[in-house]
Amino acid sequence: MGVELVFDEDFYKEVEKRMLERGVKVTEEHKKYGLIPAGFELIKNDYGLAPGYFYKKDGKILLVLPGPPHELRNVLENASKKFEGLTKKKVLVKTVKTFGLKESDIVERIKDVIEELKPIGSYPIIPGMVDLRLTLVGEDEEKLKEEMEKKLDILRERLGDAIYGFDDDTLPGVIGKILRSKGMTIATAESCTGGLVANYITDVSGSSDYFKGGVVSYWNEVKSGVLGVSDVILEHFGAVSEPTAVMMAEGVRKLLGTDVGISTTGIAGPTGGTPEKPVGLVFMGVSIHGKTFVLKKIFKGDRLMVKKQAALNLLDFLRRKLGEVQ
Amino acid sequence: MGVELVFDEDFYKEVEKRMLERGVKVTEEHKKYGLIPAGFELIKNDYGLAPGYFYKKDGKILLVLPGPPHELRNVLENASKKFEGLTKKKVLVKTVKTFGLKESDIVERIKDVIEELKPIGSYPIIPGMVDLRLTLVGEDEEKLKEEMEKKLDILRERLGDAIYGFDDDTLPGVIGKILRSKGMTIATAESCTGGLVANYITDVSGSSDYFKGGVVSYWNEVKSGVLGVSDVILEHFGAVSEPTAVMMAEGVRKLLGTDVGISTTGIAGPTGGTPEKPVGLVFMGVSIHGKTFVLKKIFKGDRLMVKKQAALNLLDFLRRKLGEVQ
Repeated sequence: MGVELVFDEDFYKEVEKRMLERGVKVTEEHKKYGLIPAGFELIKNDYGLAPGYFYKKDGKILLVLPGPPHELRNVLENASKKFEGLTKKKVLVKTVKTFGLKESDIVERIKDVIEELKPIGSYPIIPGMVDLRLTLVGEDEEKLKEEMEKKLDILRERLGDAIYGFDDDTLPGVIGKILRSKGMTIATAESCTGGLVANYITDVSGSSDYFKGGVVSYWNEVKSGVLGVSDVILEHFGAVSEPTAVMMAEGVRKLLGTDVGISTTGIAGPTGGTPEKPVGLVFMGVSIHGKTFVLKKIFKGDRLMVKKQAALNLLDFLRRKLGEVQ
Repeated sequence: MGVELVFDEDFYKEVEKRMLERGVKVTEEHKKYGLIPAGFELIKNDYGLAPGYFYKKDGKILLVLPGPPHELRNVLENASKKFEGLTKKKVLVKTVKTFGLKESDIVERIKDVIEELKPIGSYPIIPGMVDLRLTLVGEDEEKLKEEMEKKLDILRERLGDAIYGFDDDTLPGVIGKILRSKGMTIATAESCTGGLVANYITDVSGSSDYFKGGVVSYWNEVKSGVLGVSDVILEHFGAVSEPTAVMMAEGVRKLLGTDVGISTTGIAGPTGGTPEKPVGLVFMGVSIHGKTFVLKKIFKGDRLMVKKQAALNLLDFLRRKLGEVQ
């Protein structure tokens, strides 16, 4: 099937304007940006020059999207209104976000009620972090909502506090809400995660309300000199140890004057492991006011996977500890 | 087409062993993990229980992969040896990694020699960061290498120092090599990027050789109290300003005693923008020994895109400045 291209004057003028804004020297060559497939509707791309192309026939749609992920997402969002009214059927989707149970643990907990939950899909993000997706299709929206609520009640009962949120909730977003509701501030002290924990926290819009800042203490002299981890502790127990994780979390809390301090120290690999302290070993500390707790884990996977698992496990550990605070 | 499942005793024992290691209570139910499609070969999954399944017929292959991205990558790598010998044709692929030119700028620079470069694909990562992929297919490997070298020479001549690397090179990896070769150490001072710059740097294995650590100074009291940015500067010019970026980069260099200090301060959004200082405005500082340089940019996109562009633009700015150091 061939598609005829037509020149869209209005659209080309918009593209030309954007190119001029970006300092592009517009040439005759650029006119081709104004050619669009005949019969297609343009969908706005807020981040790039290539728009989306939308076509609808016999209740089916064709959508052409730009390549760069952020542009693709943007155009897809801008096109989403077009999907409405294609069918009378309503689709209700709910994502239940869990942390602390393996996929096989979840199956074990719900297998006797699985028929009441179907269709249900499970999507592991990292080991111990699983999204569950419930889908309902029907014509009566109210009834769908009721049915969904029943399914959610079953999952709440079976999975308990492993559920940290729903749909667009994220671990750092949920933690942000808890900190905000308690009027608490937080600081990070990172070794093996190298800034990833602070990065996750600051991905949340408005995190500057409770996140004062953090220290990445890769070298021991930064752990002692900036965070105040004692040299005796570093020599006797080593940088990758429970006492170091404690002193890092407490140290950054004191340095930045926050209610909460959290820390990571471990071996991200692939080098640096020993029989006693293998690659993947990470200590994660949470200091809230006077009390400090440490979680020890050995993660599998490559360097980036160890960093990611350490950062997310620390955030989940923090979520649970914040839940215990009155 | 139906596929018969057969029970693989040896494989099941391996799975059972792994489950026991992970503390899973093994039940009769788990036996299904030992069922594999008849005629398929198993491919090892180092990170999960689900293996890959490999099938080859008439020079064509079918490979079944597990879902979680890190498991998929692992199984694909483990399977890659199986692809050899499927054809006599050799495929030579080279990726040229560029920073500092828009996709349209690159087109402008190479359009008169495009026939000599074809087939060439361009893959924008973020605005101003573009991967170019050259592909050659043929039976004579030596000849392919020669042809590829000719194409690379053309690109080197046309794109100059916008090329930061090839194939698996990354911006933080390339910077690591430069720092290592010069025997220099580095520290980060981040505001709007919130730890992302340090995270990128520490994604590189061995980065602890030159990266001492960093400070995420989200609140002004951290900028002044820890990094020593003067209160007068913060009041007069504001936290998002060239002088603040300078003092952050110099401050962290002095605090951690490194040769190089780099900084970011800006407005990641979506809130906090003003007509004078809009969302997306970022100042990036590079302090090398006594000299400090600042790059000012206004990035488009959402919060995460602003953070990402700021972190990567800072790293490229650093790469260029390190190149000027004797």
